[in-house]
Amino acid sequence: MATSTTHPPLQFSIKPSTVSRSETFDPRFLNKKLTLTSAKFKSNHLKTSCALKRSNISSTSTPLMEKKYSPEPTIVDVDLGNRSYPIYIGSGLLNQPDLLQRHVHGKRVLVVTNTTVAPLYLDKVISALTYENSNVSVESVILPDGEKYKDMDTLMKVFDKAIESRFDRRSTFVALGGGVIGDMCGFAAAAYLRGVNFIQIPTTVMAQVDSSVGGKTGINHTLGKNLIGAFYQPQCVLIDTDTLNTLPDRELASGLGEVVKYGLIRDAEFFEWQEKNMEALLARDPNAMAYAIKRSCENKAEVVSLDEKEGGLRATLNLGHTFGHAIETGFGYGQWLHGEAVAAGTVMAVDMSYRLGWIDESIVKRTYNILEQAKLPTTPPEIMTVDMFKSYMAIDKKVADGLLRLILLKGPLGNCVFTGDYDRKALDETLRAFCKS
Amino acid sequence: MATSTTHPPLQFSIKPSTVSRSETFDPRFLNKKLTLTSAKFKSNHLKTSCALKRSNISSTSTPLMEKKYSPEPTIVDVDLGNRSYPIYIGSGLLNQPDLLQRHVHGKRVLVVTNTTVAPLYLDKVISALTYENSNVSVESVILPDGEKYKDMDTLMKVFDKAIESRFDRRSTFVALGGGVIGDMCGFAAAAYLRGVNFIQIPTTVMAQVDSSVGGKTGINHTLGKNLIGAFYQPQCVLIDTDTLNTLPDRELASGLGEVVKYGLIRDAEFFEWQEKNMEALLARDPNAMAYAIKRSCENKAEVVSLDEKEGGLRATLNLGHTFGHAIETGFGYGQWLHGEAVAAGTVMAVDMSYRLGWIDESIVKRTYNILEQAKLPTTPPEIMTVDMFKSYMAIDKKVADGLLRLILLKGPLGNCVFTGDYDRKALDETLRAFCKS
Repeated sequence: MATSTTHPPLQFSIKPSTVSRSETFDPRFLNKKLTLTSAKFKSNHLKTSCALKRSNISSTSTPLMEKKYSPEPTIVDVDLGNRSYPIYIGSGLLNQPDLLQRHVHGKRVLVVTNTTVAPLYLDKVISALTYENSNVSVESVILPDGEKYKDMDTLMKVFDKAIESRFDRRSTFVALGGGVIGDMCGFAAAAYLRGVNFIQIPTTVMAQVDSSVGGKTGINHTLGKNLIGAFYQPQCVLIDTDTLNTLPDRELASGLGEVVKYGLIRDAEFFEWQEKNMEALLARDPNAMAYAIKRSCENKAEVVSLDEKEGGLRATLNLGHTFGHAIETGFGYGQWLHGEAVAAGTVMAVDMSYRLGWIDESIVKRTYNILEQAKLPTTPPEIMTVDMFKSYMAIDKKVADGLLRLILLKGPLGNCVFTGDYDRKALDETLRAFCKS
Repeated sequence: MATSTTHPPLQFSIKPSTVSRSETFDPRFLNKKLTLTSAKFKSNHLKTSCALKRSNISSTSTPLMEKKYSPEPTIVDVDLGNRSYPIYIGSGLLNQPDLLQRHVHGKRVLVVTNTTVAPLYLDKVISALTYENSNVSVESVILPDGEKYKDMDTLMKVFDKAIESRFDRRSTFVALGGGVIGDMCGFAAAAYLRGVNFIQIPTTVMAQVDSSVGGKTGINHTLGKNLIGAFYQPQCVLIDTDTLNTLPDRELASGLGEVVKYGLIRDAEFFEWQEKNMEALLARDPNAMAYAIKRSCENKAEVVSLDEKEGGLRATLNLGHTFGHAIETGFGYGQWLHGEAVAAGTVMAVDMSYRLGWIDESIVKRTYNILEQAKLPTTPPEIMTVDMFKSYMAIDKKVADGLLRLILLKGPLGNCVFTGDYDRKALDETLRAFCKS
């Protein structure tokens, strides 16, 4: 971790020191540090609240900046007034108990995880929560693993556990796992006793670069993805990049689909960095991975700060998702990973943008190439028909008064629109081009 | 409706004209009126936001004020900044389509009601929503009636209907019924696509004086009441007092239990008015009923405005509810009506307050008398044991870090506290006094 890597700054005018910062924690001064750090957070949230504002969603290039990467946690703030919170990013963060403990409210913690992640990290998280802290007792609920269990029946197991264990309002739920666990635990925390505190500990690339940040929580319905849920923000997001060491290659690639998304919709420079560093990411180079996570979180945090409830801007983070959700629903939850479906959906959205005459062919090619390089699907599964796409896309959350709004690229790389104002013919053509029937 | 009734003003310094106001709607000037009224709402919300602030929860007496009651809607504002909304109270309001239509967002409306209320009022509500308004289409979902159906399985029927009918984010859910329907429809609206608009049309005294106002939504768990839910505010509450004409006597009495509550915890003058007017209320005198509803809504609106998420003050609205919820859970949902369980719970809370030496014996007697007069239970059902109470009360939402906090009366009539700082012996004595084993 002592090597250096290229750290291009975001192209808009944010001082890196206010958006992300490093801190060292010395266990000998735990209590003192805790107080100091809390004060620091507050002050930094206030500072970044102005610095993070940005009036458009496009990106242009600026010169690259060299910066040394250190194993200390990087902190990205999500600026939401009195509901602001930090994202900690770094190696070995689960070995720093104070990071977690400072965000626990009350004396009871419920860790929600799954059968895959529990054997790997549950003990470690419990240790971090209870280390030199007899004030807290921890329970856990271990759910079956996979998107197909992201349903009401499985969610009820979390409520059952919390109620049977008599968790009260001053409790903290901790999501330990990927996107499914984060979404379910978050919704459970939002609804349990009408809202308890929660913490995200994402353990997949997908969750670390996207789903754990921003407070979207929920479950699937047999007829569609994430149709039941809440906007509910965590107390903090703790990203220990070491947890990626146990992640299967397919899961890793799936998460990179969301990383590519940030480049396409708003950060051309980041996209160019990815084109150069995709091999390093696939090889799990820790510096490359840490940078990709940090930059993704910065993009996500900024968008969420500007549009928490998805009035418009935030919807742009769903590039490829309307097509992708149709694939997930039509093909069956869990057949493809979320990022795989989104990758194919992204190619379709980009294809449609091109058919509308909104982007150059070069962007279509570069999108296709980078997703191919990431070993992600670039066409939907053969089972998907035009009618299936139309049917499932019609119940997308972005439909308004019957009009399907889509995120499409428009202009130079790094620019997009969220609109219902497009030629339906282009959508039909794209669907026909990608489906056999 | 041309007779007059006694209208004592709230004892604190609120100009009645800003808290509640009357407006006439002339169908000939519908569009014009709509615009004017919207502007007026805005301005009134702003005005009342200061006027409604109040720093304590006790009440003292002031002289009574005579005011003529008219069939025009009275409006009580719930002041919650940009989420403020009006409560319309009056006779024949379902015959005034503009009242409802101005609060519908989008083109799709889902009316959630039950098998008892649907035959009585569903057509009327659909007519009100669609009268001279081809822009809106209405669907409905009719749930089984009763507290025992306030569960996740029944809630899923609302989601199923909304999803199958392809309701999008710009939809409006309308709760037509009592407290159970309001709580379930509200939670469905909170969670459907992470939040759609909703309107409350309460048709029971219980819902009109309490549960439809203030945004508490949720469902029961087999182990406890309202353990899963959300704080989610409606666009408006429309109380057509004519709907009470079809209400069974037992339901009527149940709602009066909550009316008595406002008097006991914060409005001594209202309590005294109830003592004099209980017979009129039981006889459904329209003026007495309208006044009781208005005064209850004013009390509720004020408390909710000051403490939406139940940081403290709002909890006082739950006088008798911790005992009452234990009865509902232990006895089986639906055996007793909510207000019946709360009435017995209120007598227990008042008994305990007296044992603690916090109130005079006269308050115990007056509480007992007024609930008896309202034909409500003043002791728990025989099935309830001390252990059952203790067990169910331990999972109450007001437990914090293991400590059960209760709402207890303290001081002169109209004063209460929300506290965990009481002698446990008094609680034990009360439980033993009211339970056979």
